[in-house]
Amino acid sequence: MEFKYDKRDLQFILKEWLPMEEVLSCSRFKDNFGLEDIDMYLNEGYKVAREVVSPINGQGDKIGAVLKEGIITAAPGYDRVYKFLQENGWGSASECIKLEGGMPLTLYKALFEMNSAACPAIMSYIKLTSGVANLLIEFGTEKNKAMFLPKLLNGDWQGTMCLTEPDAGSDVGDSITKAFPTSDPCIWRIKGTKMFITGGDAGICENTIHMVLARPEGGARGSAGLGLYIVPKIWVNEDQSLGKPNDVITAGIEHKMGLKAQATALLNFGENDECYGIRMGPVPDEKGRSKGLAMMFNMMNESRIGTGHNSNCQAAAAYSVASRYAMERIQGRPFGDANTDRVPIIRHEDIRRMLLDMKAVTEGIRAMIFKGFYYLDIQNNSDDKEKASVCRGLAAIFTPIVKGYGSEASLAVIAEAMQVLGGVGYTQEYPIEQNMRDSKILTVWEGTTFIHGNDLVGRKMRMNNGADFANWMAAIKDFIDSEKGNSRFQAEISRLAEAYGCLEEIKKCYEFWYGNMDKKKQFIPLNAVATLTACGQVQTAQCLLEQATVAYKKLKELSGCHYDRSFYEGKIAAARYYANQVLPNVFMLAHSIASEDATCLECPEEALVV
Amino acid sequence: MEFKYDKRDLQFILKEWLPMEEVLSCSRFKDNFGLEDIDMYLNEGYKVAREVVSPINGQGDKIGAVLKEGIITAAPGYDRVYKFLQENGWGSASECIKLEGGMPLTLYKALFEMNSAACPAIMSYIKLTSGVANLLIEFGTEKNKAMFLPKLLNGDWQGTMCLTEPDAGSDVGDSITKAFPTSDPCIWRIKGTKMFITGGDAGICENTIHMVLARPEGGARGSAGLGLYIVPKIWVNEDQSLGKPNDVITAGIEHKMGLKAQATALLNFGENDECYGIRMGPVPDEKGRSKGLAMMFNMMNESRIGTGHNSNCQAAAAYSVASRYAMERIQGRPFGDANTDRVPIIRHEDIRRMLLDMKAVTEGIRAMIFKGFYYLDIQNNSDDKEKASVCRGLAAIFTPIVKGYGSEASLAVIAEAMQVLGGVGYTQEYPIEQNMRDSKILTVWEGTTFIHGNDLVGRKMRMNNGADFANWMAAIKDFIDSEKGNSRFQAEISRLAEAYGCLEEIKKCYEFWYGNMDKKKQFIPLNAVATLTACGQVQTAQCLLEQATVAYKKLKELSGCHYDRSFYEGKIAAARYYANQVLPNVFMLAHSIASEDATCLECPEEALVV
Repeated sequence: MEFKYDKRDLQFILKEWLPMEEVLSCSRFKDNFGLEDIDMYLNEGYKVAREVVSPINGQGDKIGAVLKEGIITAAPGYDRVYKFLQENGWGSASECIKLEGGMPLTLYKALFEMNSAACPAIMSYIKLTSGVANLLIEFGTEKNKAMFLPKLLNGDWQGTMCLTEPDAGSDVGDSITKAFPTSDPCIWRIKGTKMFITGGDAGICENTIHMVLARPEGGARGSAGLGLYIVPKIWVNEDQSLGKPNDVITAGIEHKMGLKAQATALLNFGENDECYGIRMGPVPDEKGRSKGLAMMFNMMNESRIGTGHNSNCQAAAAYSVASRYAMERIQGRPFGDANTDRVPIIRHEDIRRMLLDMKAVTEGIRAMIFKGFYYLDIQNNSDDKEKASVCRGLAAIFTPIVKGYGSEASLAVIAEAMQVLGGVGYTQEYPIEQNMRDSKILTVWEGTTFIHGNDLVGRKMRMNNGADFANWMAAIKDFIDSEKGNSRFQAEISRLAEAYGCLEEIKKCYEFWYGNMDKKKQFIPLNAVATLTACGQVQTAQCLLEQATVAYKKLKELSGCHYDRSFYEGKIAAARYYANQVLPNVFMLAHSIASEDATCLECPEEALVV
Repeated sequence: MEFKYDKRDLQFILKEWLPMEEVLSCSRFKDNFGLEDIDMYLNEGYKVAREVVSPINGQGDKIGAVLKEGIITAAPGYDRVYKFLQENGWGSASECIKLEGGMPLTLYKALFEMNSAACPAIMSYIKLTSGVANLLIEFGTEKNKAMFLPKLLNGDWQGTMCLTEPDAGSDVGDSITKAFPTSDPCIWRIKGTKMFITGGDAGICENTIHMVLARPEGGARGSAGLGLYIVPKIWVNEDQSLGKPNDVITAGIEHKMGLKAQATALLNFGENDECYGIRMGPVPDEKGRSKGLAMMFNMMNESRIGTGHNSNCQAAAAYSVASRYAMERIQGRPFGDANTDRVPIIRHEDIRRMLLDMKAVTEGIRAMIFKGFYYLDIQNNSDDKEKASVCRGLAAIFTPIVKGYGSEASLAVIAEAMQVLGGVGYTQEYPIEQNMRDSKILTVWEGTTFIHGNDLVGRKMRMNNGADFANWMAAIKDFIDSEKGNSRFQAEISRLAEAYGCLEEIKKCYEFWYGNMDKKKQFIPLNAVATLTACGQVQTAQCLLEQATVAYKKLKELSGCHYDRSFYEGKIAAARYYANQVLPNVFMLAHSIASEDATCLECPEEALVV
């Protein structure tokens, strides 16, 4: 089925909902972008996604990235499309958050979204390269930047982030990759093994620039001791020309459930003691502490919201296919009318329920994601420092919620989309089974759902003495208060108010547990995922209702037969559905959290193992 | 990771929970099976699953069944294992429900379960062959039986069920495959295309016996007009020897997300007008009605409960891997103890929560499934006709619930199991990603989840004037009443009572809607899946609590250090967890159903299509 995408909703987000004029008036953007350009970007971006990017997706899944004798061959077309996107402004040069000429994230991510829905594997290469470029821009010396940035940004080279090791996954502080000093204080000898490296070797361009976490000799234990090193696959001379290979061996690639065109590599650094890296950031302090992880985490909010975003792209792609199939497929007769003609299945009640569920969840999470990108844009670019600081806090709260809840909910949408197609959805004739396989990893990447739950309840909730979380709560409360009484959505707003009350209850539980750590500390991680889900569902409902109030105003301005009415009516339906059918789950979660049920901890360990 | 399975829970079900003595005392079984044989069967069955069946699973997934020039080659070992299972009593000869020497379903399915967890693709061939044999036994003439049964049962041949067509999926009554009379009233000429035929051509043995639904010339429209025909791939002579090929062409096989070793074929019958079938059952009546679909549906309860069962096998297999991984994998430190040693991840609170969730859902659904098989055993074999009739009704209610809720919940368990493993769970290094791919189709096979929801609310709830559904409700109510006051599970029993109250509310909604069809009929299908889920969760909780009361009694009999204590403690923990953490979802569903929210039906169709 031909690739299509919901450009209209992106348009609504950027032109009718978010205060984009505020973003575009920041000095970094105001000479380059205007509100009136948005349609052009969306139209061109959609064309690129349809015509350039989507054609490589299915074949890439079938052929995959292949490792043979230490060399990776990319799936057909991936080198060409990578170069095209990077060279023509659809990639890192537009994404990098501090680069002159770069786009606001809100705008760039709308373009990225369509490409990622069209082919997630290729966009992961772009995203990693942007991450490396961002690190260089933020922490690199002028020399570092001059050596590496131009060819990363023009698509000659690509970048990777090397954190995970065989024995250090969720707990990266236990990394054992080492860095040894050489006679040049900037150059260190690197030795160790990194695994699950996205694009660790990709076969799409002439060089790969690895950002490697390693512990300098004598460094402190734990994550504080880790330094960050630029390790080119082929050494780069100061004039950007290539030197000799840098003893980085591709020892294997993962055979995965999906994302097969995206090589996930096992890399051996310094197997022959001939691997060198360029130190980023300051030398270790007197206690052996480096800032390696902190530097990498500097980009973490964007990259984690981005992972939630990726999963939502796949959900949206699957929903689009399911919705068009439902219009075309003739099967069955209306309920209770056995003698009439067969109808397209979109006429069946349960199909409509599933479609609206997919629409509400997908659009709601998309809204939340773009609100997150908006906060990042203001944080990174606003001249109003106080506002930037508030947005930094809000983005920090949004990050685990969007990543954790977003990726889990998106997977459920894809399973539902397959259900609309029935048996054919299980076949490779339609892209949904690939969407499902490609996106399952997104509940693990950039931290599992629990890691994000724990980030929320263990760190973000209490950060800045709880001020950021309080600001986040207040933004929801303000919306409820402003809509109470004057809203067309009385029932839904009271649901939201009730769910907000649940969040207050959950917050009290956590305050109590933190106040009684000796007896209660186990409940903090135990309820982390439930809390994350509750926050995600409240935030999603709030975004949808906020959009519905905009849609309601627009509807009043349109004539009764205007072609765009159904779009706004759909927005309102999605908000109503989510508030009435999904949001009540928060009541159950809050009750469960408050019950301090420790059954799973009291149950003997042997009873849990089969 | 080596294949292991929870034999202990099967033992508990058969020897400590279900009244198996009642089943084994039926005249069909009493000379052949005793309670004391159960351990031996389970031990031997486990050995077969581990040593014979599980080794072909992973490779079968990688190589798959391959179609080349109209001929299917099975994945390596599938022919050998098929023959082994059929010949040695692990297959159809034990499964067939009216065959002399056949096992009770409760016992056979415990053996089947381990094999299906070990390799679902091969067991689907066995199951289909049993289905064909069951049809022959129930409706075939003596001649039919003599010609086809022996070689189906000994593994020389295999069987298929041919219902679906390109334009007749969920709505089988729209089938257009035709049957034309010949000079022999038993032999009909068959013409048409059938798709999604499991094992339609499998390459595992010398002949395939298709049971084909086709409309005899002049037959009534809709499902009532469909007849049933035995269509051998190679014609079978009366002495069971093979004749000439029967014009059944394998036109294609599906390329699927999973179950790749199980060929799913597109079959053309009579492309050259030379395909013949043997009529099963009576000739069409004066109104052109045949009993084809009715005959096939005769076996439907077993086969649909069996599909729920298959999905639960995959969930159990995934849970087993996740639980063992959690014991072995060292990662992270206990929450709040950054300075202690790293621990196996089973010590982390959220991992334990996920493990108990998987255990509770898997064991709860397994219990419900085996209760369903028990009802079928009594229905099919009891000498007490009244009891058999009650059980027939209960099995009819159980069927959609087990299939619909069971398959959906099992998929969620597998996704959770992958989450325990993190990144490696997404790779083919562990079997979980295959479990997930293999099992997604089970929410569609034998009818989608909605089809079962609709079966429940549209048919089963009202069958026999509502007597069967009332009996089903009464069985739950009786359990609640019997446990009230004297139970160790006060909190959980009141949760169950509350959830039972929700079912009563839902039932009232349906009575009201049926009484006001002109205005309310849309709510009947719209709330079908929610009702199915609510019934599934109540029934699962009831089964788990019933098992917990048995476990509690057993615990009291065991010494404090008895090795088996943890098993019973685990049973109790699973019941508590499910009642407190999963069952409350029913409250939300009941509220949603009663709200008569029609947003998805009122939303313009265009707004739902992207």
